[in-house]
Amino acid sequence: MTFDEAKKCLNDNTIKRNHFNRAITLICWDLETQTPAKGVVRHSEAIGFFSEKLYKIFTSKEYRHALEVLNTSRENLTEIEKRIVTLSIKNSDKTAKIPQHEYVEFSELTALAQSVWAEAREKNDFSIFAHTLEKIIEFQRKFISYFGFEGHPYNALVCEYEEGMSVEKLDDFFNTLKQEIVPLIARISKEPQINTEALHQKFDVDTQKKFSKWLAEYLHFDFERGLLAESVHPFTLHFDKNDVRITSRYHAELLLSSIFSTIHESGHALYDQNMGDDILGTLLSEETSYGIHESQSRFFENLIGKNILFWKKVYPKLQESFKAELSDISLENFYRMMNIVEPSLIRVEADELTYPLHIVIRYEVEKTIFENPSLSIHDLPKLWNSKYKEYLGIDVQSDSEGILQDVHWSGGSFGYFPTYALGTAYASHILYHMRKTLDFDTLLEKGDLRPILNYLTQNIHQYGGLKTPSELIFNLGQEDFNPKYFTDYLKEKFSKIYNL
Amino acid sequence: MTFDEAKKCLNDNTIKRNHFNRAITLICWDLETQTPAKGVVRHSEAIGFFSEKLYKIFTSKEYRHALEVLNTSRENLTEIEKRIVTLSIKNSDKTAKIPQHEYVEFSELTALAQSVWAEAREKNDFSIFAHTLEKIIEFQRKFISYFGFEGHPYNALVCEYEEGMSVEKLDDFFNTLKQEIVPLIARISKEPQINTEALHQKFDVDTQKKFSKWLAEYLHFDFERGLLAESVHPFTLHFDKNDVRITSRYHAELLLSSIFSTIHESGHALYDQNMGDDILGTLLSEETSYGIHESQSRFFENLIGKNILFWKKVYPKLQESFKAELSDISLENFYRMMNIVEPSLIRVEADELTYPLHIVIRYEVEKTIFENPSLSIHDLPKLWNSKYKEYLGIDVQSDSEGILQDVHWSGGSFGYFPTYALGTAYASHILYHMRKTLDFDTLLEKGDLRPILNYLTQNIHQYGGLKTPSELIFNLGQEDFNPKYFTDYLKEKFSKIYNL
Repeated sequence: MTFDEAKKCLNDNTIKRNHFNRAITLICWDLETQTPAKGVVRHSEAIGFFSEKLYKIFTSKEYRHALEVLNTSRENLTEIEKRIVTLSIKNSDKTAKIPQHEYVEFSELTALAQSVWAEAREKNDFSIFAHTLEKIIEFQRKFISYFGFEGHPYNALVCEYEEGMSVEKLDDFFNTLKQEIVPLIARISKEPQINTEALHQKFDVDTQKKFSKWLAEYLHFDFERGLLAESVHPFTLHFDKNDVRITSRYHAELLLSSIFSTIHESGHALYDQNMGDDILGTLLSEETSYGIHESQSRFFENLIGKNILFWKKVYPKLQESFKAELSDISLENFYRMMNIVEPSLIRVEADELTYPLHIVIRYEVEKTIFENPSLSIHDLPKLWNSKYKEYLGIDVQSDSEGILQDVHWSGGSFGYFPTYALGTAYASHILYHMRKTLDFDTLLEKGDLRPILNYLTQNIHQYGGLKTPSELIFNLGQEDFNPKYFTDYLKEKFSKIYNL
Repeated sequence: MTFDEAKKCLNDNTIKRNHFNRAITLICWDLETQTPAKGVVRHSEAIGFFSEKLYKIFTSKEYRHALEVLNTSRENLTEIEKRIVTLSIKNSDKTAKIPQHEYVEFSELTALAQSVWAEAREKNDFSIFAHTLEKIIEFQRKFISYFGFEGHPYNALVCEYEEGMSVEKLDDFFNTLKQEIVPLIARISKEPQINTEALHQKFDVDTQKKFSKWLAEYLHFDFERGLLAESVHPFTLHFDKNDVRITSRYHAELLLSSIFSTIHESGHALYDQNMGDDILGTLLSEETSYGIHESQSRFFENLIGKNILFWKKVYPKLQESFKAELSDISLENFYRMMNIVEPSLIRVEADELTYPLHIVIRYEVEKTIFENPSLSIHDLPKLWNSKYKEYLGIDVQSDSEGILQDVHWSGGSFGYFPTYALGTAYASHILYHMRKTLDFDTLLEKGDLRPILNYLTQNIHQYGGLKTPSELIFNLGQEDFNPKYFTDYLKEKFSKIYNL
């Protein structure tokens, strides 16, 4: 195979891959947002079918040979092509280690598992989900053995979501967080608590939806290239930069839930919508890692969305939407309410300070699962609940609010959770360096978010998968990832709010 | 290839076909209901890609050989298998006549054309759509020459939607309709007109949506196996009997539009939801023809939905939803308003009596296009408008309300429109024979629609594509399709309403 033939082979297979991916992505979107109950099975089977097509592309002899040819002529490749070849080889090698029938079975299993999990959660009955979860974990264990690993077996999964990450590094990171956060929470618990009664009113759901749409637009989400829908679990999904979709959720009693879901997912979406045109349609038009993706959602959710300066422009608009409910509530009061620190059961509703501990718990549970092959599936709820007692001091009364609360395991995403804490901490690292070139506070106060978005696009979004997470982070200020910026931020912010 | 190998080959290809079809169907659903503007192009390309996959299945040597093997051993096939083989051979022969690249180009073109048409319609500018339409018509002319035809070239398209139909038969049919309907409309035009002022109030859109959902359920649409969404043009689409989707449309000023769209599409959906389990997953789990499909939607829309007996139970529910607007309007008044006869511009809003003339116009325009290859695309609006003047006596002031009103041509569906009139007339033929075994009026009045649905399922739905349209119609009462039942019904109903 000549160099040009190899290029053509890669190109043809990328186009095929994109089409099959589009089908899978759209079926997933449909499953999460609207598929009728009895349509789920056939939809899931179709995911299996199209996954098999992808498997065949990634593992075909011709394709792998083409990658080899290109790799031995790297000097003739552009920077973008080099990275594509590197990632494609890595991906192909990994995929080829999984037997085809297991790859397909796993795809179908996880597509179906979502509705099993949803039923278990709704009925608050872990036993409904236990068997499916067990099968998923078995697959994960097999995959770990196929992939191989150094150090901890969980490493094989962790680095799937965050290139270069390991249990050793994560242990360090989480220990830092625990050391700084746990005492801070303890101090706050002795202070007078913020009264959030005003948030327990009923907020009309249709008005919330309209406000969410306005809010996403305010954050420069481009509705010509995306849409906002509704789902049980908010999420972001993209076909390419020209079609990026987010969901939020709405309950009359939970105004802040819809607001921060929308801001969070908008942050994800802005990453996807602002990737460079030079990587469009290539393997690189994906996030470089889930941690970096999360850094964008958390940047918007926390550093922008939970900042009082942001609300100077936005709160009057919200008050206008909910005149009867909010006209008596001052901006300062609203700000304090959205930042109440309170150990609670549900990760996605957690405040900024207790949030990382929810992740610590999941991290430790997952680590235990993969270092202990004889662990029974039925012991997991107990393990989960004991950790909530240990780190957050609360009793889990029901599995729906405990181990069944998150969708991730049903999708087979073990090793994913740590990226939530990493991303959150990356966001503070990014802001620290952004402040050297931008007057972040003034821009936020003026409601001029464009320069902030431009900085993120310039330094993060445009690259997609072209640069590694650690490269992106390092390039911001010639400094490796430093979790201190995150803990410093938390200490300063919450000391002020709670007058410590 | 042995008989068993041939069976396996057909089976394997059917599964593949189903998955690719699912992808195409879902992309179409997405395009019609939600795809953001800039996501349309890639979605359309994907349709082209998956259409190519279908083309390759239908035309592969192995598949065609398998069909031949099965066809020469028909004595070993079940009734269902025989029909599958017959239809598959027909389909494969037809597809193979179109060169692959044209098949794919045409799929992509028509997927894209929908948004071009929508823009043209919105901007009331035929010239935006003209070039695309011209290309679509060129493809149709080519396909006609590939397929071959007897008699009129338009026959090659007409029989695509209605097996066994021809221009000759349609000319007869439409002449009958014209002879009976035109004088009736003329007589009615001399009578005092029904006052429909009460319908020109504003009806809250969210309440309309809730009522539509209730209405679909009342008609036995199964929401476990389907959903109701919103689109510019209401339509029905199904993956299989377990996932059947309908849309409606809602405007505050057009209460009846949402009601009758929902009833119409529910009628379609009930056909799809009630096909037999023995044909599930096969080629036969599709309508046998578009005319038969339309007979079901029109049965529900007109014979049930525009019948005063139906509204005895339903109108109080509607009044409850719109207390302020409807409490002063009597059932009789409401019934008369929904049955006003009034020549108008828009087909889908037309009354039962003028509706067939809208179809006559489209039929004649399409016939002209294909018998006259030198006809300029730019002459079409004039031709359209002159026919509206001739048959309905009205002036078309804008193309949006004229030639641009319908989506069909953008989808390449020439030859489709006649099935609307056929289906409408089939419905009366069905009812005539249904009345011999069911007390239709009493059931309607009691709101007991189940026996009516059972009759339709028994005689129509369950068979899917197993029986031809003319077999289904004949088997109802051992009588070939008789349009007289339709014209008799119209004469009786409207003579009564207008006291002729």
